[in-house]
Amino acid sequence: MKRTVFALVAVAATAGVVACIGLAYGQANQEAAPIFVSKIPSGYREWRLISVAHEEGNLNSFAAVLGNEAAIKAYREGKLPFPDGAIIAALHYSHTASEENNKVFGRSQSFVAGTPTNIQFMVKDSKKYAATGGWGFAHFKDGKPGDEAFMKTCFPCHNQAKARDLVFTRYAP
Amino acid sequence: MKRTVFALVAVAATAGVVACIGLAYGQANQEAAPIFVSKIPSGYREWRLISVAHEEGNLNSFAAVLGNEAAIKAYREGKLPFPDGAIIAALHYSHTASEENNKVFGRSQSFVAGTPTNIQFMVKDSKKYAATGGWGFAHFKDGKPGDEAFMKTCFPCHNQAKARDLVFTRYAP
Repeated sequence: MKRTVFALVAVAATAGVVACIGLAYGQANQEAAPIFVSKIPSGYREWRLISVAHEEGNLNSFAAVLGNEAAIKAYREGKLPFPDGAIIAALHYSHTASEENNKVFGRSQSFVAGTPTNIQFMVKDSKKYAATGGWGFAHFKDGKPGDEAFMKTCFPCHNQAKARDLVFTRYAP
Repeated sequence: MKRTVFALVAVAATAGVVACIGLAYGQANQEAAPIFVSKIPSGYREWRLISVAHEEGNLNSFAAVLGNEAAIKAYREGKLPFPDGAIIAALHYSHTASEENNKVFGRSQSFVAGTPTNIQFMVKDSKKYAATGGWGFAHFKDGKPGDEAFMKTCFPCHNQAKARDLVFTRYAP
């Protein structure tokens, strides 16, 4: 099974909030303006499945991770680094007990996607986002991007997955 | 938010195994041969996301629920019953702790799709599967369909979701 990884959630784990947007920092010129992924990539809800994810604790999140054509192709071919143009989307929902399902099952065991909490993206552009490993990080809650302070936490966390081109989520066959 | 439902997992909940294939039973003629969905619908891994699901207990399953074009269209339009040709797929994996993610997060909180366990389908054909609410149920483990005894449990369970055309899974926006 080919495995590659993606976890914007990692950021949320340490910050208690999920909010990150790509920005170029750590550049030689410390005054470099951060680069924001300020627009939600169009058509992401039509993209194909990469995998699913669940975070316990404060996050209590349930995620569907989707990829655009370039991302899915790279995953399936096991090619790293991801090519420019690849975009990975994490659709986050609350991890919610389903009373209606449990009633049918006769026991408490069923969890479903509850309220949508945020949508996060990783956008690959090796030139534009060179300062953050070639990835632009994005976070949108109710259509609005997160704040800069949180955005700065995305890259250091994802950078721990250098061997997988900063992507935590593995492809589910 | 439009919601519709699907839960082949319900079957597994009571049987401890997930194995169901559509069959026509309960007909006036008790000798009617069961109708099997014996072939995995082609291209299902390319389908779009309906939602995600997690079952605790013996199942310990993590699911991505996908729909073909007809199913997605019906979900988005909130139209019930689903039209003939609609197919819903539940890709089941083990709900597995991610040691590599937890190491980055610094705590045990992350769960990912582990070993694939089975793939289940609901295939809408109101004539062919008239005896089971218009749906043919299918279950494949390692490419092989489940046994008849278990298949018989699919319909009675799904039939409890009559108001949603026997489909438990709701569409995640």
